[in-house]
Amino acid sequence: MSTPSVAAEPRSEIEAANHRFMEAFGRGDAASVAQLYTSGAQLLPAHSDVVAGTSAIQSFWQGVMDMGIQEVILDTLELETHDETAYEVGRFTIKAVGGELADTGKYLVIWKRDGGSWKLHRDIWTTSQPAA
Amino acid sequence: MSTPSVAAEPRSEIEAANHRFMEAFGRGDAASVAQLYTSGAQLLPAHSDVVAGTSAIQSFWQGVMDMGIQEVILDTLELETHDETAYEVGRFTIKAVGGELADTGKYLVIWKRDGGSWKLHRDIWTTSQPAA
Repeated sequence: MSTPSVAAEPRSEIEAANHRFMEAFGRGDAASVAQLYTSGAQLLPAHSDVVAGTSAIQSFWQGVMDMGIQEVILDTLELETHDETAYEVGRFTIKAVGGELADTGKYLVIWKRDGGSWKLHRDIWTTSQPAA
Repeated sequence: MSTPSVAAEPRSEIEAANHRFMEAFGRGDAASVAQLYTSGAQLLPAHSDVVAGTSAIQSFWQGVMDMGIQEVILDTLELETHDETAYEVGRFTIKAVGGELADTGKYLVIWKRDGGSWKLHRDIWTTSQPAA
């Protein structure tokens, strides 16, 4: 295997983008969350078909907010950069209104450097909770 | 964004690896399925913590086979290669003994070229079926 470049700069920029995700989600601003994705981005959520494009992504996250989810916490475990593409593995925690734990799990995101900013391009996650 | 290289060669090699996955799974050979992953590979399945390493990956797929799943069909929708790393988005169909449809969904796989072969390195998928 080649040795991938893991420069400090993409890592800090991607972690900053994740912080903007968490902040926008926390204030219920689905439009700003959606702007963190590329225009051709796709979510691959469970119990759903692929969610493609800015408008559909905004609606998806608005729907999650409307279900009473108030906080998303993202924690990067692995980040590997190849030129203007990166993949990130992380853990998430989501909390409902009042701080109640709603879900925990892990995610895999493909990031693209797009117009000078790192943006989410492919986003998939799974719960680590037992099946209901 | 940069224009990624999408050479014919990685695509045909990765599609061949997916065919080996389907064939090994179809004959109930979890050991051969696990050999298609890098030694440091991770599965990120729903309702589970991360499944890391060859032995744990073999046990995971053996467990799926033991649940009565007999066939996995993988269909590549997107493949983007960056040197010795690639990401693939695809759709899966899984069938139980007797051909009954068990699940459909989508997946995101990070592939690594490892010792001359493309191997699965990060593997995550979600069902597209409605929640139970």
